Amino acid sequence: MTLNEIFSIIDEDLKLVEDSIHHNIQNKIELISSIGSHIFGSGGKRLRPALLLLACKLFDYKGPERIYLSSAIEYIHTATLLHDDVVDNSVLRRGKQSANSIWGNEASVLVGDFLFAKAFILIVGSKNIRVLNILSNATGNLAEGEIFELVKTGDLQTSINDYFEIIKNKTGVLFSAACEIAAVLADAPHNLLNSIKSYGDKIGVAFQLIDDALDYASTDVELGKKIGIDIQEGKVTLPLIAALTNANSDSLYSNVKEIFYKDSIAEDDINFLKNFVLENRGVEDTIKQAHNFISQAKEELSIFHDSPAKTSLLLLADFILKRRF
Amino acid sequence: MTLNEIFSIIDEDLKLVEDSIHHNIQNKIELISSIGSHIFGSGGKRLRPALLLLACKLFDYKGPERIYLSSAIEYIHTATLLHDDVVDNSVLRRGKQSANSIWGNEASVLVGDFLFAKAFILIVGSKNIRVLNILSNATGNLAEGEIFELVKTGDLQTSINDYFEIIKNKTGVLFSAACEIAAVLADAPHNLLNSIKSYGDKIGVAFQLIDDALDYASTDVELGKKIGIDIQEGKVTLPLIAALTNANSDSLYSNVKEIFYKDSIAEDDINFLKNFVLENRGVEDTIKQAHNFISQAKEELSIFHDSPAKTSLLLLADFILKRRF
Repeated sequence: MTLNEIFSIIDEDLKLVEDSIHHNIQNKIELISSIGSHIFGSGGKRLRPALLLLACKLFDYKGPERIYLSSAIEYIHTATLLHDDVVDNSVLRRGKQSANSIWGNEASVLVGDFLFAKAFILIVGSKNIRVLNILSNATGNLAEGEIFELVKTGDLQTSINDYFEIIKNKTGVLFSAACEIAAVLADAPHNLLNSIKSYGDKIGVAFQLIDDALDYASTDVELGKKIGIDIQEGKVTLPLIAALTNANSDSLYSNVKEIFYKDSIAEDDINFLKNFVLENRGVEDTIKQAHNFISQAKEELSIFHDSPAKTSLLLLADFILKRRF
Repeated sequence: MTLNEIFSIIDEDLKLVEDSIHHNIQNKIELISSIGSHIFGSGGKRLRPALLLLACKLFDYKGPERIYLSSAIEYIHTATLLHDDVVDNSVLRRGKQSANSIWGNEASVLVGDFLFAKAFILIVGSKNIRVLNILSNATGNLAEGEIFELVKTGDLQTSINDYFEIIKNKTGVLFSAACEIAAVLADAPHNLLNSIKSYGDKIGVAFQLIDDALDYASTDVELGKKIGIDIQEGKVTLPLIAALTNANSDSLYSNVKEIFYKDSIAEDDINFLKNFVLENRGVEDTIKQAHNFISQAKEELSIFHDSPAKTSLLLLADFILKRRF
């Protein structure tokens, strides 16, 4: 099943969100509109808005906040992508040139700030203190996750706990916030709020696990971005951590370490590390973990009555395991 | 009169703000605490918190929000400094090494984001929608000002109107927000709110005018940052705009243009441009404008009864004209 099919029940809402995203980025300063059109026209999947909208459907909530809060969450997500690209010096993003490689780091930093501010303005527009609490804390956790990831860059001793703390903050938090906001808007009872929030968190973590696995297992064309990029950036993700643990060999660890700390890593080195990770079940274990999180996420939905929204959320969970993008 | 003397009536409050600033930046991630200590220990003047606190004194408002909202405003200001330094590639900030030159651009971008998020969390803590509106719009304007400045970089045709739009957004807005928040917290009548808000805006613009004048008129040691830096960064500020207008000479314009667009500008070039600006009354006119804004700002205060707070605000306005930092 395609993502479009899974999202068909929120098709109208997603169009409204898309309009809202493009409308609110318009600005008399042309650079803002240009960068905005570029990044929001690059075929993002709008996973976070879709989650918020599906969760609203689940609670049968139809208020207007669901549209502009979805845009706000997408703005926050996009702002972190813009800032990430500066941090990572990325050249490709979703198969297209990244904003920083066209307009420069300066513009990416400042337009990212502009998106954060616009999100802030939209969120304040809800006048809902609970929503404001969720999203202000989410942006705080997001920043902490990114900084912790930066601190752990190039640290081959990064533990599994460190890794999960990073991905929970940098990816899980915004997925879970999208779900929690729907519950808050609908004034859902506490147990339902906790379940949908936990569902969001878990599929977010699974999403990141698959992302990190694909960096070792996919090809450039499929991924729409360069692969082996985590290695080149010195990012120690679960596939590598698991492979090192599974290999349990001092000499292999030394080999990996030697390559990992080279000033410039050649194609051969990347292939060596990719093979090392694949042979030592790093990708396999990571995907296994993703499966665990997805089945836990689906379990969280058992508390809800059957409905088209619930079906879509279950299908979305499965889709995350199958994605090749 | 020194700034300390002018701020003596809010001495206790400023200490509480300082504690709050340092307390809220503490984090289990050491990099955040380190960068935080570095930037908040570099002797910032805390002008924006002081403005908020003085305005609260003026309205006799003593609620606890004045402390943490002052910290929030300082966080927003500092986040823009961190991001500015990445944009400008600054090496010095307040006479000390800038954060990006010690920890790298990546950390400056992400810790800036963290400060924005912390500010957002503190502001939400006030549960005051008017305050939230003021500060969310202020951060939006701030980002717009920074982006417009970036767009106008290297544009010798930058108009006086463009220049004032930039400095009003990048500096005036946060000064005026600090003042307006005090009026909102104190539930002040509309006319008083407008006056104090306008006072803040005007001293903010004057502050930036003096800043831009000092870049041509001061020496490295006095300024605590390198001078002639606006030229090197291609920033077209009022001293240059005014000098070009006053000179009214095609051949001088061509000379300036030739130097301005050099790939690397030598010491001699900077001295030529400095002299050109000084001789053609660029600095003089800029300082004259600053005087205009300051007298307008003081005029805004005439609506208030005499009080120690009003006296301090009047002295602060004068101080801005005399500053050499």
